[in-house]
Amino acid sequence: MSLIIRNARVLQTTPAGEMRILDQQEVVIRGNAIESVRPATAAPPPDAGEIIEANGQLLMPGLINCHSHVPMVIFRGLAEDVSLEKWFNEYMWPLESNLQEEDVYWGMLLGLVEMIEAGVTCVADHYFFMDRAAEAVRQAGTRAALGWAVFGSQGVAMLDRTAEFCRKWQGAADGRLTTWMAPHAPYTCDDDFLRGARDRAADLGVGIHIHVAETRGQTEAHVQKRGITPIRLLDDLGILKLPTILAHAVGATDDDIRLLADRPAGVAHCPKTYLKLAMGIAPVHAMRRAGVAVGLGTDGAVSNNTLDVWESMRLMALTQKEATGAPENLALGETLAIATRGSARVVGLGDRIGAVEPGRLADLILVDLDGAHHQPLHSVPASLVYAARASDVRTVIVNGRVIMRDRHLLTLDKAEIFRQVNRSLERLSRRTPASRIQVYRP
Amino acid sequence: MSLIIRNARVLQTTPAGEMRILDQQEVVIRGNAIESVRPATAAPPPDAGEIIEANGQLLMPGLINCHSHVPMVIFRGLAEDVSLEKWFNEYMWPLESNLQEEDVYWGMLLGLVEMIEAGVTCVADHYFFMDRAAEAVRQAGTRAALGWAVFGSQGVAMLDRTAEFCRKWQGAADGRLTTWMAPHAPYTCDDDFLRGARDRAADLGVGIHIHVAETRGQTEAHVQKRGITPIRLLDDLGILKLPTILAHAVGATDDDIRLLADRPAGVAHCPKTYLKLAMGIAPVHAMRRAGVAVGLGTDGAVSNNTLDVWESMRLMALTQKEATGAPENLALGETLAIATRGSARVVGLGDRIGAVEPGRLADLILVDLDGAHHQPLHSVPASLVYAARASDVRTVIVNGRVIMRDRHLLTLDKAEIFRQVNRSLERLSRRTPASRIQVYRP
Repeated sequence: MSLIIRNARVLQTTPAGEMRILDQQEVVIRGNAIESVRPATAAPPPDAGEIIEANGQLLMPGLINCHSHVPMVIFRGLAEDVSLEKWFNEYMWPLESNLQEEDVYWGMLLGLVEMIEAGVTCVADHYFFMDRAAEAVRQAGTRAALGWAVFGSQGVAMLDRTAEFCRKWQGAADGRLTTWMAPHAPYTCDDDFLRGARDRAADLGVGIHIHVAETRGQTEAHVQKRGITPIRLLDDLGILKLPTILAHAVGATDDDIRLLADRPAGVAHCPKTYLKLAMGIAPVHAMRRAGVAVGLGTDGAVSNNTLDVWESMRLMALTQKEATGAPENLALGETLAIATRGSARVVGLGDRIGAVEPGRLADLILVDLDGAHHQPLHSVPASLVYAARASDVRTVIVNGRVIMRDRHLLTLDKAEIFRQVNRSLERLSRRTPASRIQVYRP
Repeated sequence: MSLIIRNARVLQTTPAGEMRILDQQEVVIRGNAIESVRPATAAPPPDAGEIIEANGQLLMPGLINCHSHVPMVIFRGLAEDVSLEKWFNEYMWPLESNLQEEDVYWGMLLGLVEMIEAGVTCVADHYFFMDRAAEAVRQAGTRAALGWAVFGSQGVAMLDRTAEFCRKWQGAADGRLTTWMAPHAPYTCDDDFLRGARDRAADLGVGIHIHVAETRGQTEAHVQKRGITPIRLLDDLGILKLPTILAHAVGATDDDIRLLADRPAGVAHCPKTYLKLAMGIAPVHAMRRAGVAVGLGTDGAVSNNTLDVWESMRLMALTQKEATGAPENLALGETLAIATRGSARVVGLGDRIGAVEPGRLADLILVDLDGAHHQPLHSVPASLVYAARASDVRTVIVNGRVIMRDRHLLTLDKAEIFRQVNRSLERLSRRTPASRIQVYRP
């Protein structure tokens, strides 16, 4: 059976950031993959299955969120205007002592609703009770790279538990799920624990998703204590031999950047969190020049406060222009290449998603550029990077299946999800600093 | 006749940035002003005229755009990834040599559509052929503070022309229009010309809307040439004795800030332009601490690329937290106070708009916080500053009149406006650097 999208404009980018916009295209999807991209014909082919009339809407790869803690949406708005240290010690980690398995399930579903409505088709998620998150993704029909977050204080038995999670879900949900070992960070996991995570990942053939060098201050504190940067430590421990998602690497040094360029590591860049918590500006421009893979993330909704990858893309371009003092940097083509191919590479699917090309998996979105905020449409790329809103996304396809059509969700019951999340509102917002799950002291 | 909004949550802020959210309110509007804000009654009063059932939507002051060049929307997307100098000399000023009076009219209407749909009820605009812009505002039903932009090279006769514009339109359209003299900037207007603008403004009883200290580099170049900062020059010329809208003051020095705190001047802050053109971070936090009036603007759509004041608000808070290294700064209350009362003060209407209080003019918007990106709604202020989108605005009231209801525009014909703007697309995008209207050489 085929799915045909007719009369679409198609965005294509090369890895180097060259772009073209093809008008009046017909895209044929067979099974879960793109079969062809060709000029529209007068009438749909006779063997056409489902047909989507795009009416000139823009077809592009679904957005990819390379680092989030999706179920944290249940705490959205509960930690405002505070420092990173307070954010962890007085807000987030005390709040997470309220967390129950069911919260992860309903929170994941809520976050998936928000992301589908914003055109996000794949998320690399890093949280707790991830069996429940995996069930939510299976139900939603999206793609995900899931890691069960663990702290060194939980002991190696917990590493085995999360390795078991990986074994169970790797390749599940028609191949939409990949799994990752997810030790929290060098400052919450000792070397032996990190080696344990590495060994289990290597055995399972999966990668590692970890926070590292979140600020320049963390890097400096680590150098003081250990004599090397936290990124160098991960390399010394053999972690960077594996595919790795590094959130956030804001404090990556020039040496770190040179190192990362030679490793199968990708950096998940979440600029809204960095601005809001005054964590510094990540050296994205320098990473890209060095050849480090960079993708976009939102981080969790307690720092972001949304899961809007359009905003991550825009903030990346804007802050890099400002920080480098050169408005020519992070130009439209490079910015869109990062949001598509770059992010695909970071989540380990660089040759499977992130481009509208025959043979790629059909993770695609249709974006309406007819709104007043896009008129007149002199430049589609400029509109995508600087004017588009999550609400402009009309239709979402993942793995060849339509999961939102003309803003109508086809896989999830939004009202029921809202009801379930709101049932626990009072319990979730209780905050007892003494009951925090960890202490932030990098 | 009265207009009653029932079952709304109401956002109230004090000038100091204290906030409260009142649930289940009934707001009565009589004529063009708010008559009362009170807890909802069981049934609407018997003398009720029009009734709007808010169903828990948030009622807040309409957003105010303190500095824009609205008709520039017609050039949206035509000057990307370039330096400020190139932006002026190779793009904007050559493009504006294509400009005709009719372009201003249709461009203004297009920008007003975008702003109404985004909940912007008032704009301080600075552009050319402003008789046509004023007609567009009269038709749209919004509020505006209009200034006809002039360069010193145009000679004093042009000052008289723009003073005539002020005389004609001041207080027009049921009081929705105010007018301002609008010399472009100290670097494009000599001292005599600026004195001429000052004298005419003083005679007319209007203020002055001018660009100044757009970057730190402009300030330094001015000090080099003249021995004083451009803001000090405006003061020496007597301009700052009048009500003044200063765009952008990114390069304001500590001395400038102390000076401005004692003058009836307001700063229009347009952070997206500053980031995109790498102009530096404006000292908003320092200005506020010193008591300088600060409001939000979008600047024109060729640098922004939208007219979205929600985004300006968010970028202000995010960039100030980052630049000051203190996430406690520009907290939710202060940010919302700037977006409402602060902006009202900058456009010279500090006691008339910007608050949901009896006696204020009824420039109000209803915002839907039921979207997935707001759930669960632990904090209305956090949602407004960090999660709300222009598309969440459902209903817009200006001067007591509903001009958008449930996203349906009641005063403007969007399709016709799009058609008219697109008719001129090819002519408008022609770019001949030799035919620029000015040269940027500060």
